[in-house]
Amino acid sequence: MRERRRKKDGGLAPGTAIYMGEDRVEEIRITVTDYGPEGLTERIGLEAATPPGPDGPAVRWIDVDGVHDVATVSELGQRFGLHPLVIEDVLNPHSRPKAEDYPDHLFLIAKHLQLLRVEQAEITRFDVRSEQICVLLGRGWVLTFQESAGDAFEAVRERVRVGRGRARQMGADYLAYALIDGLVDRYFDVLDTLSDEVEALEQEALLGDPDELPLRVHLIREDLRLVRKMLMPLITTIGALQRGGGLVTAETQLFLRDLTDHVHQVSEQLEASRDAVGALLDTHLAIAGQRLNEINQMLTIAATIFLPLSFLAGLYGMNFAWMPELEWPWAYPALLGVMVLIAGALLTYFRRRGWL
Amino acid sequence: MRERRRKKDGGLAPGTAIYMGEDRVEEIRITVTDYGPEGLTERIGLEAATPPGPDGPAVRWIDVDGVHDVATVSELGQRFGLHPLVIEDVLNPHSRPKAEDYPDHLFLIAKHLQLLRVEQAEITRFDVRSEQICVLLGRGWVLTFQESAGDAFEAVRERVRVGRGRARQMGADYLAYALIDGLVDRYFDVLDTLSDEVEALEQEALLGDPDELPLRVHLIREDLRLVRKMLMPLITTIGALQRGGGLVTAETQLFLRDLTDHVHQVSEQLEASRDAVGALLDTHLAIAGQRLNEINQMLTIAATIFLPLSFLAGLYGMNFAWMPELEWPWAYPALLGVMVLIAGALLTYFRRRGWL
Amino acid sequence: MRERRRKKDGGLAPGTAIYMGEDRVEEIRITVTDYGPEGLTERIGLEAATPPGPDGPAVRWIDVDGVHDVATVSELGQRFGLHPLVIEDVLNPHSRPKAEDYPDHLFLIAKHLQLLRVEQAEITRFDVRSEQICVLLGRGWVLTFQESAGDAFEAVRERVRVGRGRARQMGADYLAYALIDGLVDRYFDVLDTLSDEVEALEQEALLGDPDELPLRVHLIREDLRLVRKMLMPLITTIGALQRGGGLVTAETQLFLRDLTDHVHQVSEQLEASRDAVGALLDTHLAIAGQRLNEINQMLTIAATIFLPLSFLAGLYGMNFAWMPELEWPWAYPALLGVMVLIAGALLTYFRRRGWL
Amino acid sequence: MRERRRKKDGGLAPGTAIYMGEDRVEEIRITVTDYGPEGLTERIGLEAATPPGPDGPAVRWIDVDGVHDVATVSELGQRFGLHPLVIEDVLNPHSRPKAEDYPDHLFLIAKHLQLLRVEQAEITRFDVRSEQICVLLGRGWVLTFQESAGDAFEAVRERVRVGRGRARQMGADYLAYALIDGLVDRYFDVLDTLSDEVEALEQEALLGDPDELPLRVHLIREDLRLVRKMLMPLITTIGALQRGGGLVTAETQLFLRDLTDHVHQVSEQLEASRDAVGALLDTHLAIAGQRLNEINQMLTIAATIFLPLSFLAGLYGMNFAWMPELEWPWAYPALLGVMVLIAGALLTYFRRRGWL
Amino acid sequence: MRERRRKKDGGLAPGTAIYMGEDRVEEIRITVTDYGPEGLTERIGLEAATPPGPDGPAVRWIDVDGVHDVATVSELGQRFGLHPLVIEDVLNPHSRPKAEDYPDHLFLIAKHLQLLRVEQAEITRFDVRSEQICVLLGRGWVLTFQESAGDAFEAVRERVRVGRGRARQMGADYLAYALIDGLVDRYFDVLDTLSDEVEALEQEALLGDPDELPLRVHLIREDLRLVRKMLMPLITTIGALQRGGGLVTAETQLFLRDLTDHVHQVSEQLEASRDAVGALLDTHLAIAGQRLNEINQMLTIAATIFLPLSFLAGLYGMNFAWMPELEWPWAYPALLGVMVLIAGALLTYFRRRGWL
Repeated sequence: MRERRRKKDGGLAPGTAIYMGEDRVEEIRITVTDYGPEGLTERIGLEAATPPGPDGPAVRWIDVDGVHDVATVSELGQRFGLHPLVIEDVLNPHSRPKAEDYPDHLFLIAKHLQLLRVEQAEITRFDVRSEQICVLLGRGWVLTFQESAGDAFEAVRERVRVGRGRARQMGADYLAYALIDGLVDRYFDVLDTLSDEVEALEQEALLGDPDELPLRVHLIREDLRLVRKMLMPLITTIGALQRGGGLVTAETQLFLRDLTDHVHQVSEQLEASRDAVGALLDTHLAIAGQRLNEINQMLTIAATIFLPLSFLAGLYGMNFAWMPELEWPWAYPALLGVMVLIAGALLTYFRRRGWL
Repeated sequence: MRERRRKKDGGLAPGTAIYMGEDRVEEIRITVTDYGPEGLTERIGLEAATPPGPDGPAVRWIDVDGVHDVATVSELGQRFGLHPLVIEDVLNPHSRPKAEDYPDHLFLIAKHLQLLRVEQAEITRFDVRSEQICVLLGRGWVLTFQESAGDAFEAVRERVRVGRGRARQMGADYLAYALIDGLVDRYFDVLDTLSDEVEALEQEALLGDPDELPLRVHLIREDLRLVRKMLMPLITTIGALQRGGGLVTAETQLFLRDLTDHVHQVSEQLEASRDAVGALLDTHLAIAGQRLNEINQMLTIAATIFLPLSFLAGLYGMNFAWMPELEWPWAYPALLGVMVLIAGALLTYFRRRGWL
Repeated sequence: MRERRRKKDGGLAPGTAIYMGEDRVEEIRITVTDYGPEGLTERIGLEAATPPGPDGPAVRWIDVDGVHDVATVSELGQRFGLHPLVIEDVLNPHSRPKAEDYPDHLFLIAKHLQLLRVEQAEITRFDVRSEQICVLLGRGWVLTFQESAGDAFEAVRERVRVGRGRARQMGADYLAYALIDGLVDRYFDVLDTLSDEVEALEQEALLGDPDELPLRVHLIREDLRLVRKMLMPLITTIGALQRGGGLVTAETQLFLRDLTDHVHQVSEQLEASRDAVGALLDTHLAIAGQRLNEINQMLTIAATIFLPLSFLAGLYGMNFAWMPELEWPWAYPALLGVMVLIAGALLTYFRRRGWL
Repeated sequence: MRERRRKKDGGLAPGTAIYMGEDRVEEIRITVTDYGPEGLTERIGLEAATPPGPDGPAVRWIDVDGVHDVATVSELGQRFGLHPLVIEDVLNPHSRPKAEDYPDHLFLIAKHLQLLRVEQAEITRFDVRSEQICVLLGRGWVLTFQESAGDAFEAVRERVRVGRGRARQMGADYLAYALIDGLVDRYFDVLDTLSDEVEALEQEALLGDPDELPLRVHLIREDLRLVRKMLMPLITTIGALQRGGGLVTAETQLFLRDLTDHVHQVSEQLEASRDAVGALLDTHLAIAGQRLNEINQMLTIAATIFLPLSFLAGLYGMNFAWMPELEWPWAYPALLGVMVLIAGALLTYFRRRGWL
Repeated sequence: MRERRRKKDGGLAPGTAIYMGEDRVEEIRITVTDYGPEGLTERIGLEAATPPGPDGPAVRWIDVDGVHDVATVSELGQRFGLHPLVIEDVLNPHSRPKAEDYPDHLFLIAKHLQLLRVEQAEITRFDVRSEQICVLLGRGWVLTFQESAGDAFEAVRERVRVGRGRARQMGADYLAYALIDGLVDRYFDVLDTLSDEVEALEQEALLGDPDELPLRVHLIREDLRLVRKMLMPLITTIGALQRGGGLVTAETQLFLRDLTDHVHQVSEQLEASRDAVGALLDTHLAIAGQRLNEINQMLTIAATIFLPLSFLAGLYGMNFAWMPELEWPWAYPALLGVMVLIAGALLTYFRRRGWL
């Protein structure tokens, strides 16, 4: 649930090419997709992954699934003239989402979110999983790295294959945009699920007094905090893409403006959920406080009425030899009368104070 | 109550023309109003909805009620040369309020608010309903889209028909301003109702201890949060209209400045209500805390006085064969005296501590 | 207490001249004061209220008491060439404090504060009353509107009449400054009274436990919130006056800088009072929490000691035929001894836990 | 403790020379110090207090102790060509710390802090006293005003007299810097004392449960708030001194940068103390909440065990003629057994819930 | 735990060279390292510590361990032409992290963090220790001061000695970067430990109800606050290094951008831990509130059921001579029946209210 932290050994020189994620054994897979308005070819393997020449395809997209093979990633880095610090960031799955512009390419890091439903000890909780996505945008090429083979880019790849809409008509900058847009769509999905959970919690809380409310609020808050941590840098990232040197056309700029708008929408929905869940806990505490008052009121009423009555009963249960009242014939009914009077007076008092 | 969320399928290409609201069956209605200082004509139907030519009327206003008919909206989009992303936003009733300038038109999204009074389980709550309004301002024309036929624009339309004041003297930019101004007036109405409710709640809370206070505070807060979410982007929207390229005249600028001022006034009233309702809950909790202290004080006094007395009574109710005190003739009055002393001492102690 | 809200009918065209305050019957009064270094004349009535000509007096000040006579206000507006939106704002006593510059005059709205002491249900509360003041500054003239005849401008008028200090030496811009300065002085008075009330509350709260503390804190907070709402826009207003085109001389600029400084001082005092009253409630709640602990401690001690002892006494009050202990001669003193031991052990335990 | 407020009569014209502090009788004292690298002369009295001529000393420092003699201060103001608003601020000991630049001099107001230890009702509290310091920096002269004769400038005066370090080598701007630097040093002292108090409170709070904790936290918070109010404007003041026209040399700029750094250090220490004292109260409340739970747990355990047992004992203490159980020989031991079972079951239940 | 404060005597002139840390006796050690692409020499002692001449080594790094020897530090300061204020800051181990640019060198102060695990009274707490590091970057030389001999620079020194990577290829600016980068790596370590502790606390808190939770939260919060205080100025410091005049090459700029990114990552992790620990306490308080309700519910149920029953039993335990019920043969079973009815009715009531 909590994001894993960077495990870099403090003594390492900056820019050293070392893989810093968990150990993985599966082979990394490189898919090279060349396309343009007139057609598309797909090849798999490192040998095809070179920057396109002057008479190459309109767009070459090299997608790398898995970043634990340092040699392959370094090799790609050299072919595309990437800075050692870029390689270091690609190899470290705990990098921070960001955007950096280098003289002839743009380097973006973003997080692909997934939400896992976990049933644990009668509580349904959600586990936010994030996978790191690196996107490098150059002239005529896009280089992408995913931590593991997954569906992060599947929808975009399908659109490019089918050639629907403007997918193949536009350049590498539009591809980079479309990939980030796909990631942002996942944030909508994740937030929708969390918002539904907040709403469900709200219904439960306002109707009854669910035992696990504070715990469930705690878990959802943690999820929202995590999503927020991933989302905030995205705004800066897309801003950098918009400025992005001469690499981004005016046409794609309009789409990026729309994307910024979507990210703000996600961000607002996130803040709304955070507010709602915070308000929920406040309301719950206020209601709990009212219940505590009610409970203690009932206790106080019961004790304040019956303690004096019991004392009187106890008094005349004493075995002293000389207790003249015990002999009076009308003493018992008189005492009962006194008791009724006391109880009545106390009840009247409580009613006056508004406790009944 | 909670705003519906965007339901876009993550795999769709951006700019795809698909209706994303709830299913609707009624036909969409197009009203074309041509007017200038000298007169006004109104026509209904798609065929009349074209951009005005050079010798056309001073202002052509095309109002579309309902956006669920994709074909009609796309057709209009093509006639007026709208960007596919504009069409996508028009068709999605869950777009975010915003303003975007395109080369030859300005695109605004705002929300038309309505407040529904709902009586539910002895609690009066308010339901904030929002309907999306799209306004496109070009040279000599204004194109508006409403989610459903309603009264959002009725007051302005009436003013234009009657030709009162400067309604027909001024251009399309003034019409766009007047439409947004009408929406802002509804925010005043909504906030007035909510402020009255806050005030009523305050009166009740400070006089008595209404059972449902936390719940009602919770519901009002949610309403205010929703209104705020709709209102905040309006400020940016009007700012964009003020900058709005060459489309807005200096004369209309003054009116827009006045409008900005109104929006700030709504915003301040909103914040004041939020503050008031927050302070109300704080005060309620503080008063509840005081009551808890009072309740527990009474309980403690009752128990601390009667528990020892009852113990003494119980002691002399024991049946031991050898209890010499029981035989002493003055034992009973002496014990009564001791009990009075104990009660008196405890009462004095409580009075000294300020509990009585 | 709560500021009245704008009651504009949503369907009205902007810039329509309609009075939006409460109904009033008294006649509005127009005082025209012409003055310069050499002398002063005062006239009353609309006919004298014209902009001064080139050979007119150094400064013409037209003061209007009451704004409910639409005709008179509109007439004045036309004579001085005011924009319809200015007239609309003057006629609406619920306008927001602001400053707007028009080509040849500056338009300022501010609020004149008054604090009314109200004794209600044994609680002293303060009612913040605000009256709207409009100031229009042109070349050689100042036009002022007050909601009702009052003392808002009396001190300044007196200074001008007497001709003390630099009152008559300087131009219309200095008069506008002096009028606003007079309003700011009232904020000092209001805040001084409220600060004294906060201080008094603080003394009471730290010494004893006043029953009505949360309620009184609530009322003062509301007053401070209201003053703040009036004060904040004043800073912007004075800033606009400082920039104010060619209408304000360098000499007056120094006075305006001083005035800004005063407003900041009021603002800091306001924030200090808000902080103090907030801290007061926190401290009160913390002290109340400590009391609750003390109260419940005493209850727990009393109950935990006497419940077992009473049980033992009850046990030997039973009437079973076969209860051999009852016959033993030393049983009674032995039981008393056991009871003393139990009480002593419990007392020791409570002392060890620090409850005694 | 609370800062006294400005008592200006609202009707006074701005720039009127009136003393607004408390009444004082002692005579004000004027010390004129002329110095340069080669020597120093000190004179006392108004007659020596004139701006230095072209062949005057390198630096003339006129220090005025006491500002309640309006005539003397006005006289000085005229000699040095001060603006009436400067005189008004000098005479008002409740002015706000600030910096203002006039054509040929710079005007600074700062506060000299002192901390008084007060023992009141078994609580040690600190009283923050502030004295107003005005510094006017001109070409070759510095004019200073203190509310009362005190040690605010003693350390600097001593350094100038002795001529140690660069004290006499540098110009009037360095003297102004050194005076402000001396004031800032006192803020360090004040904050050190308050921080020590916070630390002592923290030790007490985490070890035991001091009765007066909320009250003492309240008092320290008020002190810190007061220091903060004095400190914040100092940053702006020093910034104004840094910009300060042509009056400040590049050499002194370095020292001012160092001073800004010191003020930020004070400010950070202040915020740290504020945070610490806030966290302390939160922790105290959380611990108090835990204690309340413990106390109520013990009460609940005692009552839940002994109430049913006492009821059973009471049942068999009844005097009904026909209660066959009373005659059974094994009834008494059986009842004792039942009581042990009930107590055991309840204890097991409480242990299972983790209450024991 | 709390950072020590500056102990400067207020009367000292600014720029005075006085050591302001704790007294130390060990000798200070000066290590001079000359290196370039072709080789490296290391010498120890003050005599070697001179700025490199035009034909000197590529980089001269003078590292001073210990700053309590005023004479040596002053001597070094003169050789390298440092400003007296720089010397004052170097000698004061309580300086604030900052960056200052002087005409021909850059002066940086940062803090080297260490985390000590302390076991105290059954609680594990962490002690944040900070050591001051001063870095001076000139043309071709770097001068560093550490409070005490330690491992702050060991990793970098080792890399330079071995000549791995680009350590020896680059200039003095890269060395300065590498030293700061080493410090930042320690912040990662410290935060990782604290985050683990927060996570452990979270596990404990959500599973059970650890007694010491508020205290442990308090201690961790204090640690995080301390780290934050050290970290925040680092961002400004690195920013100053990035601007750093002509002293920093474009190549090193890229590394500094990466470093800024790391500091932001540390900062985000810090804020995440602060949020998490705050949320933890909120959740704990909410859970404690629920427990209090449960505890008081049980008490109320027990008391409300058994107090009336005990009263009835006490009633028929009285010894009045005339109590006819006592003689009725069916009175005892009838009373038992009434008691069962009362208990049943109360239990039903509690079940209806949801307390059972």
